[in-house]
Amino acid sequence: MTLPAFADVESAAARIAGVAHRTAVATSRLLDDRAGAHLFFKCENLQRGGAFKFRGAYNALSRLSPADARRGVVTFSSGNHAQAVALAGQLLDIPRVIVMPADAPAVKRRATEAYGGEVVAYDRSREDREEIGRRLARERGLTLVPPYDHADIIAGQGTAARELFEDTGPLDFLFVPCGGGGLLSGSALAARALSPSCQVVGVEPAAGDDATRTFHTRQLQTVHNPQTVADGARTPSLGTLTLPLVLEHVHDMTTVDDAMLVETMFLLWERLKLVVEPTGALGAAAALARGEAVRGTRVGIILSGGNVDVSQIPAWLAMV
Amino acid sequence: MTLPAFADVESAAARIAGVAHRTAVATSRLLDDRAGAHLFFKCENLQRGGAFKFRGAYNALSRLSPADARRGVVTFSSGNHAQAVALAGQLLDIPRVIVMPADAPAVKRRATEAYGGEVVAYDRSREDREEIGRRLARERGLTLVPPYDHADIIAGQGTAARELFEDTGPLDFLFVPCGGGGLLSGSALAARALSPSCQVVGVEPAAGDDATRTFHTRQLQTVHNPQTVADGARTPSLGTLTLPLVLEHVHDMTTVDDAMLVETMFLLWERLKLVVEPTGALGAAAALARGEAVRGTRVGIILSGGNVDVSQIPAWLAMV
Repeated sequence: MTLPAFADVESAAARIAGVAHRTAVATSRLLDDRAGAHLFFKCENLQRGGAFKFRGAYNALSRLSPADARRGVVTFSSGNHAQAVALAGQLLDIPRVIVMPADAPAVKRRATEAYGGEVVAYDRSREDREEIGRRLARERGLTLVPPYDHADIIAGQGTAARELFEDTGPLDFLFVPCGGGGLLSGSALAARALSPSCQVVGVEPAAGDDATRTFHTRQLQTVHNPQTVADGARTPSLGTLTLPLVLEHVHDMTTVDDAMLVETMFLLWERLKLVVEPTGALGAAAALARGEAVRGTRVGIILSGGNVDVSQIPAWLAMV
Repeated sequence: MTLPAFADVESAAARIAGVAHRTAVATSRLLDDRAGAHLFFKCENLQRGGAFKFRGAYNALSRLSPADARRGVVTFSSGNHAQAVALAGQLLDIPRVIVMPADAPAVKRRATEAYGGEVVAYDRSREDREEIGRRLARERGLTLVPPYDHADIIAGQGTAARELFEDTGPLDFLFVPCGGGGLLSGSALAARALSPSCQVVGVEPAAGDDATRTFHTRQLQTVHNPQTVADGARTPSLGTLTLPLVLEHVHDMTTVDDAMLVETMFLLWERLKLVVEPTGALGAAAALARGEAVRGTRVGIILSGGNVDVSQIPAWLAMV
């Protein structure tokens, strides 16, 4: 088991060039005024498949041997990674099976199927998605492509922060949503190489604060099926690769409660005119909550995804 | 009264360069598949002030004489033009009074005030905004900056289509939202000069179909306070400048009912990840409804604005 390094982020960037979108960096005078800082929003909601996940999935799938590629891949995901694997497999002509919770947002399931993925649904409260994924891999000779705990996934996901630093130059802070820690680990590798004095802050929903507790106790902590509107960050814990990477390269971890998260998400909709999903607003919510600590600084924020089912909006409005 | 020509659009483009955003052109494989055409979305929701209106307002205000600029301007608007005048006046240091309906979306009123405009509210059902505007102009020596029936406004608004054609090359169709016809007239001037075989189609909400009836009867038709979710297109009729421009340069006019409009708006949110307001989705709704007529063609669509008050979303969802 080898941890990915920044060189792997660089190789991934070359591999996904011309396939993944080089997403825009959005800014807003009003949000800058509100934060008292210069905010740079990396728009991964505009990435193919609607989230940063495509970067890792395409990087991982494009490294399969011809024989493995022929047999296909299987993955488990709360949604965005599933879409990303389905899309990357479509582009690379690799069969793909997606293990997805039965209660995932309909828009995520539809999109996965639209990209030609085979969906296997499971019950989030009774079944273990990793077990199902492993069984399918064994039975059908598929390669398991996990959503975060994989060197090629982490390296690919790190290319978003790499592009951000290329576009903005050095930053003082970088706020990154954290589920299983793949995006956070990859972002931290990029920050260390390209903006060494940048403080990388991982952000979780308050109900799913396992990585924050892990970070502060230096011991792996877990959560079980946390109830949060941030459905992309319901992961039970950091993984075997993301644990050491987060402990070594991340400067701080923090949490945001669901009400503040939803409020921030709507603020981004109204001011940036960008549809960001709840999980995707974690970094922005934490940055706006920092107050004095970020005043006058240059702050990077990764808007990690924008896959929203509009029928969910009234429930979100009721939370604010 | 001289009608603006394409040369005026060109001068306006030079005047607003570096001040207005050169907005992105969005594309979506999924929406292309759905339309059977290549769709190019000009993202004026990402313009300063959240709508194309800034282009015209800045162009008009920057042409005031020093004496007129010192006294200030007054305008009436359902919202986006108000914000645009407030912002342009702030940038040019020109005092501005905004006559705005008392029931305009709160987000629009707040944004106007945030840009330092003085808001004078009126009752949409009892009072005439133009009359109030003219009275204030007379009493305070202000210059009236109407929302569409003004050569500098039309020329400035036409710069959006000019940029679109620069970015995409010739198009077969251009779908443009139509309220008072300023954006439509300016777009048609740009199309005629830059893509002469492009069919320019103006799009109104079904409840406010005055310009469509005007186009087909060649006689000025009006509506009174139409009830439609497209609050930017509730204007009573084309103006003295936009009437001849639309009759001469526009190829077709069509309408979209509110349910289809809202459905299209949400489709844009989910697929483009862009917040577009109902009025802003008129062109997209008409383009997607055209079916066979646009199949295989290159279609430009102006997403005219993105100023949304999220508290209105449940009412919109109930319409679909």
